[in-house]
Amino acid sequence: MSELVGNLLVAQSGGPTCAINASIAGVIIEAGRHECIEEIYGGLNGILGILNEELIDINEEKRKTVEGLKYTPAAALGTCRYKIDFKKKPEQAAREMDRLFEVFAAHNIRFFFYAGGNDSQDTAHKIHEEAVKRGFEMRVIGVPKTIDNDLPHTDHCPGYGSVIKYNATTVMEIAADVSSMATDDGACSIVEVMGRGAGWIAAGTVLAKRTPDDAPHIILLPEIPFDEPAFLARVKEVVGRLKYCVVVVGEGLKNDAGEEIGADKTRVDAFGHPVLSGAADRLAEIVQGKLNTKTRTVKLGYAQRAAAHYASKTDIDESFATGTTAVRAATGGQSGFMATIVRISSQPYQWTTGLRPLGDIANVEHFIPRDWISADGFLPNEKFVEYARPLIEGEVNPPTEGGLPKYVAFDKVRVEKKLAPRNSSNGAVGK
Amino acid sequence: MSELVGNLLVAQSGGPTCAINASIAGVIIEAGRHECIEEIYGGLNGILGILNEELIDINEEKRKTVEGLKYTPAAALGTCRYKIDFKKKPEQAAREMDRLFEVFAAHNIRFFFYAGGNDSQDTAHKIHEEAVKRGFEMRVIGVPKTIDNDLPHTDHCPGYGSVIKYNATTVMEIAADVSSMATDDGACSIVEVMGRGAGWIAAGTVLAKRTPDDAPHIILLPEIPFDEPAFLARVKEVVGRLKYCVVVVGEGLKNDAGEEIGADKTRVDAFGHPVLSGAADRLAEIVQGKLNTKTRTVKLGYAQRAAAHYASKTDIDESFATGTTAVRAATGGQSGFMATIVRISSQPYQWTTGLRPLGDIANVEHFIPRDWISADGFLPNEKFVEYARPLIEGEVNPPTEGGLPKYVAFDKVRVEKKLAPRNSSNGAVGK
Repeated sequence: MSELVGNLLVAQSGGPTCAINASIAGVIIEAGRHECIEEIYGGLNGILGILNEELIDINEEKRKTVEGLKYTPAAALGTCRYKIDFKKKPEQAAREMDRLFEVFAAHNIRFFFYAGGNDSQDTAHKIHEEAVKRGFEMRVIGVPKTIDNDLPHTDHCPGYGSVIKYNATTVMEIAADVSSMATDDGACSIVEVMGRGAGWIAAGTVLAKRTPDDAPHIILLPEIPFDEPAFLARVKEVVGRLKYCVVVVGEGLKNDAGEEIGADKTRVDAFGHPVLSGAADRLAEIVQGKLNTKTRTVKLGYAQRAAAHYASKTDIDESFATGTTAVRAATGGQSGFMATIVRISSQPYQWTTGLRPLGDIANVEHFIPRDWISADGFLPNEKFVEYARPLIEGEVNPPTEGGLPKYVAFDKVRVEKKLAPRNSSNGAVGK
Repeated sequence: MSELVGNLLVAQSGGPTCAINASIAGVIIEAGRHECIEEIYGGLNGILGILNEELIDINEEKRKTVEGLKYTPAAALGTCRYKIDFKKKPEQAAREMDRLFEVFAAHNIRFFFYAGGNDSQDTAHKIHEEAVKRGFEMRVIGVPKTIDNDLPHTDHCPGYGSVIKYNATTVMEIAADVSSMATDDGACSIVEVMGRGAGWIAAGTVLAKRTPDDAPHIILLPEIPFDEPAFLARVKEVVGRLKYCVVVVGEGLKNDAGEEIGADKTRVDAFGHPVLSGAADRLAEIVQGKLNTKTRTVKLGYAQRAAAHYASKTDIDESFATGTTAVRAATGGQSGFMATIVRISSQPYQWTTGLRPLGDIANVEHFIPRDWISADGFLPNEKFVEYARPLIEGEVNPPTEGGLPKYVAFDKVRVEKKLAPRNSSNGAVGK
């Protein structure tokens, strides 16, 4: 094991969460304990900012700002959805990889931490492989982040506990509202939550059920093809019995043919994934049209992944720990791994952190096991509940000012650039 | 002043809020201090349940349940949107009024409290007038409630402070999310909030602005006709400068012709008001179509008025006080009034409660003064901020169980019925 000494670079990528800043706080605070780490830099807007040599000096930030990251939502360093695409644009990708290593070399980056989901772990993996190939001594560790909870080989993902705590609370509150208005007419409320391929987020709202008749009454998961007649029969049965029905739907709900029922197929994001909207509205049309039951929709959108005002303390603690674990792994000589959360037991809930090769993680999507879902497909079962219940424990209670949360922001003191600007012919980054 | 002795009946009406139960707690706890009040009954689902003689005995409820109402969202007694309609159905309305007074007489109801918004205050007013006309000794006091904040003659309405605290927090968090993803492409986020005629709820999100460039950047109020070219120019300017733009829109936003831009005109509620949806989606189509800026929507729907997990302590305290004021007024011999909130000063914020004749309140809608809105109509100004700022102060922090709020529910021990069931030919109530 070489005694590597140099600077640290940390960056964030993909959709923000209310826990990804806690992971960065873990990286920064742990980095301060290791003498082999000289400067601590942050890359702005992920790989995109690093390509443009947009680095900030974290040592110029106030200590209380770094502490405040633990309860501040979104990505304090900025994030991006930029992909170095060796498949579709191999020449541009090669130029971009060259540029990244120019930046790493110019700033003596020897410890690189990238926090993000599947695509971001793929990027981290490629950078690790390139470093090995080029003989550039640098330790690369991925820090997991995704509300989608779809990374493999980690018990769950930082950000997931908070999003399901907020969503389950919201479903509980919406149910109180709708049930208190429930008269013989009956009413249906449909709540759309995030979840493109895997239904972890939608499934998590089952925690709002304290008795069998509590909402949510139906949870539609992207993993289970939508069965309209069975769905309508269930809504009708619940409305008939309770006078109201609360449905939760993951945005990526699909029909038998695998087509998303709420998809607008004309729009795709930078990774080629379809941009979704409207699963709840589509279901509302079906319920109103075929059952003549008054139906209202709620679409939580970005609110759910940014809801730090009701984050899970467990999630924030674990997110912080993945950051510290990443730094300890790197300073201990390891590279090409992602920090993971390892469950020791569910009752009582005990956990630790671990490491897993990035090559095992990248671009693998982890779905809800079929035997964690009821036979009819309309609700997660006790196995899921045992898994998810501990993840939402505890409140963070961010400080407030004037009745609103007081979140922190980096001052973002720039690190002096050492390279010539990228020629725009190198690829119009960010366009 | 007669020394009236008898039973109390309290009921809730209209859309629930996270503060209307606090008002009921105020009524119940204060009622316990007055010897002239013998039994304390709750009417289920407002006027609709009273017509069906569905009363519960509040003295059978646990003390901790009554205390828990202070932080429990929705309507613990159930609510309704049922109107005794003397204009459109005079014969049915006359029969219903007869029936109400049969119920009042059968259960010796001498103190009646009705918590709700404009329509509910109108119902309370009609009952008060009928009691006088019939020579039935009963004190009727309205308890204000509406997130819409559109009741006249009260500084603001119970429920309003909490909804704008939650919505402003949500806008702040969404803005953190969107801004951290902001790259040269630019992005727009549109948050749809409630507000059919008056824009108080949308306006309240301006409190999320701590600096001029903070979100929300544009607030579209139902009071200001939508000016599409000016709106698009503003979005373009903000996205050009900040790389992102957060827009808040009240669901009832109207065009020059007074037509709601998101209205589905085929649906109306029990009061004949159009049922709205889709203002945010309509705006997103416009922004994406004409500016080619990536746009995402959030529709908070019922979540916003039920969000007791982040309620305003000030709002809850005031809501409780309107309940106690109502009972003190009634036991003091007054009838035909609504309890109000009276502002003494804004800085420091000081308030008290008052009374106003129900005849002044019913069916009058209170809009935002034009001079509380910027000249261009896109943001409330300092006058609004001075008004709204104190209303969101303080957190309630409901107790939790398993990481989720632990709200209370009435056991609902029924009061024995003394009347024959209403003949269904009396009007198909609830259909």
